[in-house]
Formats: sequence, structure tokens, C-alpha cells
Amino acid sequence: MHTDAAVLVELNQPLRLLPLDLPDLKPGQVLVDVAYSGVCHSQLHEVRGRRGPDRFLPHTLGHEGSGTVTAVGPGVAKVRPGDRVVLTWIKGEGADVPSVSYESVLGRVNSGALSTFMRRTVTCENRLVPVPAEMPLREAALLGCALPTGAGVVTNTANPPAGSALVVFGAGGIGLSAVMAARLHGVGTLIAVDVVEQKLADARRFGATHTVNACHCDPVAAILELTGGRGADFAVEAAGRRETMEAAFRCVRDKGGLCVLAGNLPHGEQISLNPFDLIRGKRIVGTWGGDTVSDRDLPRYARLFLDGKLPLTDLISREYPLSGVNAALDDLEGGRVARALIDMGA
Amino acid sequence: MHTDAAVLVELNQPLRLLPLDLPDLKPGQVLVDVAYSGVCHSQLHEVRGRRGPDRFLPHTLGHEGSGTVTAVGPGVAKVRPGDRVVLTWIKGEGADVPSVSYESVLGRVNSGALSTFMRRTVTCENRLVPVPAEMPLREAALLGCALPTGAGVVTNTANPPAGSALVVFGAGGIGLSAVMAARLHGVGTLIAVDVVEQKLADARRFGATHTVNACHCDPVAAILELTGGRGADFAVEAAGRRETMEAAFRCVRDKGGLCVLAGNLPHGEQISLNPFDLIRGKRIVGTWGGDTVSDRDLPRYARLFLDGKLPLTDLISREYPLSGVNAALDDLEGGRVARALIDMGA
Repeated sequence: MHTDAAVLVELNQPLRLLPLDLPDLKPGQVLVDVAYSGVCHSQLHEVRGRRGPDRFLPHTLGHEGSGTVTAVGPGVAKVRPGDRVVLTWIKGEGADVPSVSYESVLGRVNSGALSTFMRRTVTCENRLVPVPAEMPLREAALLGCALPTGAGVVTNTANPPAGSALVVFGAGGIGLSAVMAARLHGVGTLIAVDVVEQKLADARRFGATHTVNACHCDPVAAILELTGGRGADFAVEAAGRRETMEAAFRCVRDKGGLCVLAGNLPHGEQISLNPFDLIRGKRIVGTWGGDTVSDRDLPRYARLFLDGKLPLTDLISREYPLSGVNAALDDLEGGRVARALIDMGA
Repeated sequence: MHTDAAVLVELNQPLRLLPLDLPDLKPGQVLVDVAYSGVCHSQLHEVRGRRGPDRFLPHTLGHEGSGTVTAVGPGVAKVRPGDRVVLTWIKGEGADVPSVSYESVLGRVNSGALSTFMRRTVTCENRLVPVPAEMPLREAALLGCALPTGAGVVTNTANPPAGSALVVFGAGGIGLSAVMAARLHGVGTLIAVDVVEQKLADARRFGATHTVNACHCDPVAAILELTGGRGADFAVEAAGRRETMEAAFRCVRDKGGLCVLAGNLPHGEQISLNPFDLIRGKRIVGTWGGDTVSDRDLPRYARLFLDGKLPLTDLISREYPLSGVNAALDDLEGGRVARALIDMGA
């Protein structure tokens, strides 16, 4: 048995579509027919070599998706063949099998515990979460990374009280997910900051009460004005840029304002902050996937979607076939899409 | 009635000793015969102009001390004439009278709510805390700033469990107070970092289990080695330097290590940090006087001293008369003293 996969053979080169031989399942592993894969800035950083030297080349990619279980290895109790699952890099309950390798015409191709830029994937029990049979696989793919990170940053990390003031920097997949969750929390002043008018329009559609185009003004000054000079109670950084991380920290209020970093910088980049702002009580924390407990949170998000409370469908900007993965990466890099999906045509 | 006071007339010039006329007490104000005043890096920053332009010149200085109440203004209930008090910049219960001014040969001399570089001072109810009659005034002076900041950072902000690993950067008055408090908490690996061997010897005397001279090695590497590669559970920055703040953050462990900034940088200076360290779960916070609740904490510290559990006496490096205040500032700047006291000869 084999599968088609998009493989990173060399940094800064397009991914190559290759057939890979599927290995036998080891204890704790699960074979999934992938339906959809998300495309995330993390993959872009990897492909463009922004994470430093890559000692795993050639390797597969993709860390959020959805699909249907087709076989399970020895000892797997969490899922059965036929189950609909979210594929997620966020570890949950179950066996952890840290890596897989596939044979190909190029020799061995490495893979971590989960890769989703492929039609069939060998993963392990703790990287998948079953969802209700009525959950569409298209939207389920977003539950693997963008949605739990953005919504989790709001729900798990910040937990804003109703009526508070929250700013989201970067209205991409993670940022818009944060906006959706903030609306569910009843945030009173919900500000989105971006440099692309289309994304700001998206943010308003998802519930932002105010938007700030950082091309046209200093976003920190704009946020101070929108909050009566006080600063925001919460800021979520989802743009993954140095300037926005620094602005997100500066725009929260003294005495308890919280800045949460959800974005990532290229390897080795630093941010600069005034330690006196920490002494004045501004807070800054990072988050690992929105502090998501996947087995608890993902079924809850699926239920919210099925109840019409999470407009996940609107988050999907464009779909590409697996052969269009390089175009999807280019569009993400160019800021032309919030969330791109690869449709495996399953 | 008048008092002698050390007055900052011009930035970067020695303080001038001047007689000041004492004003009548307003509601909430208290007149105190000062016995001892501490000399802190904050005053050094002010005198040397490192806090930016100073629109209050000429003004008095000093924000920690001890003395005896001699008169109270209308409405004061917290203390009576004859009470021994700690004078502290950390606000507690009682009336807040934000500023005082004194007449002098130079015209008006400004003062905040508390100044201690003077023999008699007009302060207000919320900047003093009564201590037991048996508490010596010499050691009581340290309860106004250095001790509550350093011990509070440990006790209130970090609250380390017994057996944990805690590092203190800077073994001056605040750092040594942190070491004392960490020993009371039963910290297992208690590391002090400084560049002066004498201060490291002091730290060992106060309970440090290991010391690192940052002149001779990379302190982050040394701390990793002393903690088995894991990093410290807690780091307290009490040196007030950019490099040590950055090192203190880097040396705490992933997934919950906490760096607390107790020191201050000159106005406008920034620190640089890797946001991925935040995402990996290192934490950094500032503290305002060790999160001290003065009316709760200062009597507790006095009791610990009287019970022989806080070796405050050893914290006093040298005493100066009020006329020696400029020498005390120079010695503090030169790293020759941990904590200097001005003895008013009362």
C-alpha cells in the first residue's frame, strides 16, 4: 500500500509530490484516510528554512487535518476503523509514537508523529480526537490547529470576562478564531489589528467591534484611544511578527493587563520590552497551542459549530488540491488567504 | 521648628545639607524624628539624572527609614507620639497626603509623601508602620524598602516550595534579603550571582548554597550545570542591569520557571528576550516592592528578626552621618556596600 505525499526535499524549494510506501502499523499507531489538511505559517517557516538547519530532510509536513480511520495498530483503544477524527499536533490522551518513516524512490522519508500533507497518513493515538459522525470533515480540519490555538488563547489562557476590552493582532486563521471565541465570551470592546483591509472586514464579520489598519496609524495609540486611555485588558498576538508582539505588550493596561503570544517568530529573533512595564503590572505570556486539552476542547468546539455558534466555514479562504500545495503556501505568505485547506478529494 | 535635610538642588551634583522650616501638620500627616535612613539605588538613579528630566528640583530624598513619632495631624489614628515606626515608600493603610513642601534659604523645597534623608520629616499615615517597642530602630530602617522588596519577591511573588532551585542575581541589599527569605522557605539549591567576591561571600553567609561570579563564567551555563541541565525554578533579578535581567529570564526552566524582576533600569532602557522562551513556558513578571502589604508584612518581618530568624544586622554594610550622604551614594555606586545607613544621631 502506498500514499501520495508532498515532501520537503530541500529548504527553499517547492514541495515535491511523491508516492510513499506505507509501513506496517506499530502498537499505538493509526492509519487515517486524510480528507482535508490545513496549511499553517509553521509549515511556511519550515519550508522557507526560517527554523534554522533541518536535519530531518527529506520529510513530510502538515500538522492539522481531518479524516477517517481505516486501520489501527495493536493496543489502540481510542478509535476504530470508520471513526471521523481531527488530526492535531496538540498531544492528547493515548499512545505517543514520536516518528514514522516511509520508503520512497528517494530512499527514506522522515515524518514526525503526524503529517497531513498526504492522502493517507500513519499517525498515533494521541494526535487524533474523534468527533461526532455529523461533523463535516471540511470544517473538522480547522479543529486541528488554527481554531484550538486562537480560541484556546482566549478561552483557556486569557478567559476574558464579559464587557472587557480585548485586542487581536493579525486577522489570519488563528486571529479570527480568537475573535470568534472572544465574541462568545461577551467581550465588550473587541479590536482587530491587521494591515490588509480584507482581513479587517473578515474580523468585523466574525464579531470585532473595531478594526485598526496598522498601515495607516500607530496601533498602540489607536487602542489607547478606543479604551479611554486605559489600555486593553487583553491582547492576543497572532501575526507572528516582532513589531506586533512589542505593540501587543505595550497596548495592555498597567496593573494586570495580559498579552498572550500565539504567533511564532523565525528562529532566533528576539523582542524588546521595557521591564518597567512589567513592574507596572503589564503581563506577557506565551501559549502552546492555546493551552488546549485536545480531548476536552475539540469535541466542545465541534458541538459549538454544530449548534451554529462557531462560524468555522467562513474561516476557509480557499481550497487547493494536493498538487496545489505550493500555491497554497505562496498565497499564505502573500497574505492573500486567512486559512487555506488542502482537499484530498477523498 | 526646622530640620536639616540633604537636598538635591541640581542633577549630577552632590546633595546639599540645608535647614528647612517644618510646616504645620495637615490632616493625615505625621511628624517623625528620623533615627536611620537607608540609601537605595533608586536615590542614586535620581541624583545621577538617570530617571530623565526632574521637574521637582530642588527636592528632598530617601524612601526607607525608621524613627519615633513626635506629633500627629488631625484625624491620624494609626500612630501616636512615642510610637516606633518604619518609614516606607510602600503604601499601606491610612491617609495618603501625596506631597509636602518646606521653606528654605533657596525658597521652596519639594518633597513627596515621604523623605528620609533628613533629621525630622513630615510624612503621612499610609507611609509608616508601627513596630514593637523592642525592635531596634537601626534594623527597623531596613524594613522600609530593601527587606520587604527582596523578601517579598520571594515570599509573596515567587513563594518557592521547599527543595526548589532559586537564583538571585545581585547580592546587594535587595538580593541578600531575597536570599534570607529563600532560606526560610527551605529552598534546596540557592544560587547567588554577582561580580564582587565580597558580596558572594555575604550571600553564602546568608544561606546561598552556591555562588557564581559572573566575571569568570557565563552565569546561565553555570546555573544550568548546577540544576542538572533543567534550569532554575525561580530567578530573582536584583542587580538592576539589562544583562542580568536577560540572563535571569534565560536561566529559568521551561514549563513554569518564573523570573521576577525586582531591580530597575535607567529610564527608557529595554530588555530583549526570545518569545519562544515564553511559548516554552518560561515566565517573567515585575514586582512593585515585592507585592508587599506593608501593614501585614512589616510587623511579621520585625517578629522574625526579634526571633533570630532574619539576620538583618548583617545586612548593614556601613553607617554614615547625614553629612556623609554623598559618600554613601558614591560607595553604593562603586559596589562597595550592600546597604548603607544614614545615622541621624538621634
